[in-house]
Amino acid sequence: MAYRKGDGKSVVIALGGNALGDTPQEQLELVKDTARHIVDMVAEGINVVVSHGNGPQVGMINNAFDYASAHDGATPEMPFPECGAMSQGYIGYQLSQAILNEMKRRGIMRSTACIVTQTVVYPEDPAFQNPTKPVGAFLAKEEAARRAAETGCTYKEDAGRGWRQVVPSPQPQRIVEFDAIKDLMDDGYIVVSTGGGGVPVVECDDSYRGVPAVIDKDRSSAKLAADFRADMLVILTAVEKVFIDFNTPRQKAIDSMTVAEAEKYIAEGQFAAGSMLPKVQACIEYLRAYPEGKALVTSLERAAAGLKGETGTVITM
Amino acid sequence: MAYRKGDGKSVVIALGGNALGDTPQEQLELVKDTARHIVDMVAEGINVVVSHGNGPQVGMINNAFDYASAHDGATPEMPFPECGAMSQGYIGYQLSQAILNEMKRRGIMRSTACIVTQTVVYPEDPAFQNPTKPVGAFLAKEEAARRAAETGCTYKEDAGRGWRQVVPSPQPQRIVEFDAIKDLMDDGYIVVSTGGGGVPVVECDDSYRGVPAVIDKDRSSAKLAADFRADMLVILTAVEKVFIDFNTPRQKAIDSMTVAEAEKYIAEGQFAAGSMLPKVQACIEYLRAYPEGKALVTSLERAAAGLKGETGTVITM
Repeated sequence: MAYRKGDGKSVVIALGGNALGDTPQEQLELVKDTARHIVDMVAEGINVVVSHGNGPQVGMINNAFDYASAHDGATPEMPFPECGAMSQGYIGYQLSQAILNEMKRRGIMRSTACIVTQTVVYPEDPAFQNPTKPVGAFLAKEEAARRAAETGCTYKEDAGRGWRQVVPSPQPQRIVEFDAIKDLMDDGYIVVSTGGGGVPVVECDDSYRGVPAVIDKDRSSAKLAADFRADMLVILTAVEKVFIDFNTPRQKAIDSMTVAEAEKYIAEGQFAAGSMLPKVQACIEYLRAYPEGKALVTSLERAAAGLKGETGTVITM
Repeated sequence: MAYRKGDGKSVVIALGGNALGDTPQEQLELVKDTARHIVDMVAEGINVVVSHGNGPQVGMINNAFDYASAHDGATPEMPFPECGAMSQGYIGYQLSQAILNEMKRRGIMRSTACIVTQTVVYPEDPAFQNPTKPVGAFLAKEEAARRAAETGCTYKEDAGRGWRQVVPSPQPQRIVEFDAIKDLMDDGYIVVSTGGGGVPVVECDDSYRGVPAVIDKDRSSAKLAADFRADMLVILTAVEKVFIDFNTPRQKAIDSMTVAEAEKYIAEGQFAAGSMLPKVQACIEYLRAYPEGKALVTSLERAAAGLKGETGTVITM
């Protein structure tokens, strides 16, 4: 059975970390609230694809396996890509269940589907030459050396607290499951996908193979939105609007800006690296690939209002 | 893009534990072999939905979290349904990647999709009155009592080795993501779904909620196959055919049997509980729901030959 697709826009929503939780119990509560805001959009006839981050969750899974495998004598070491796939199953299950429950509560006869997603990165991406993101547990130097020799992964000394695996953060090039995500959206499903930016894979000898890396979920979402020419890319974060001169007396919220204006602000250093900068950059990437699109940065709570043009920061070509 | 659907039968394949591995590294190798056998069927034009068990994998995940949360002071306790969802992400990622790689290698232009799946069970299922399946780590009596009080889960003393959580094994009633699985199959995808029988959920107040339980994956696969009237249900196991008088001088392989004959053998106690019995029962459930169907029990290695009618045990109405 195909569900009646909404008659409104198609939108890719990238959920920020505040939409999820630090523990499974906390997350199960938080996703109910997240689901309410998402279903507010579905109720307006919007066709939604939801992506989400997984930083704290994949860290927790990776840590649990690192710790258990080092101490309990039974648990195997779990490679980082597999930890990412686990986080997609865990978050995707809770998120798609919560969205489905909220739609049922409101009598919306549509369904959800969570697709485990892989994202292609290039082995020649310069990020691989300089892995910077620490993941997993702190290890003794000898243990780190043993694992490095065994797996080829990189370990670095971290601020005197021990050795940790460091992984690169390459650019997403292609969503492997793109067609399935698009077909399901066209069939009327609310699709949860590209969790944590997707499990990073490289394509060698015409084969996909997982690599230890993290992908910025906003950039993967931008790729997804551009590839299926979504009417909007919505990046949800902790604030209602993007600011310039943030935390100064001249601080000013931006209602709308063009890509050219956004690039001017970036050149001025207006947006913090690791915070608003990659979000604005993701919007620019989407708009350059699909100039007819519209990008929106706002908070989860204001997302439905933002889609109606009432708030948030809108970026256009 | 919709992939050209194969022009042959639609088949639900339930993979046995021997198709997966005990560690992620071992599993990554084993699924390559599994993928070859599955793609042998795809190459014949067959439309395949793949389900799989998760016993060892969900046990490993549950153990790792039990151990880490008890000792590392940081990892949260992970509920059993969430562990099941993680196992679906982990196994589904490796399995769909391996099938996709094998299809690429052979120039088969089809794609895979792994759907995180929930399966409805009834709260009044008698299995809930008598949880029997031990899962997770051995705990001290006091710790088990604390968790039981906190979560409402059941813990039992296990053979003098400590206390373990025990969960029920209720009957699957409905695959929540059935429509998405069917739509993807109709669109030409090789779908991986219903891993571990699906995450068990109950429906209360029109809402789905995960419950700590395990579902027999062969029974969930039978439900799935019956619901979309799959031409065949293929249950893969360690042996090429079903035997009667197994391990006696009169041992005899069965080439084909009717449901009535299968039920006669069951009444005679021919099939071992927890081994061949639930597989034959799953076939019977599928055939009672869809009498035009055909069930096949064989080994992974002989599956493609079995589909051509060359081997295995065929069960029909």
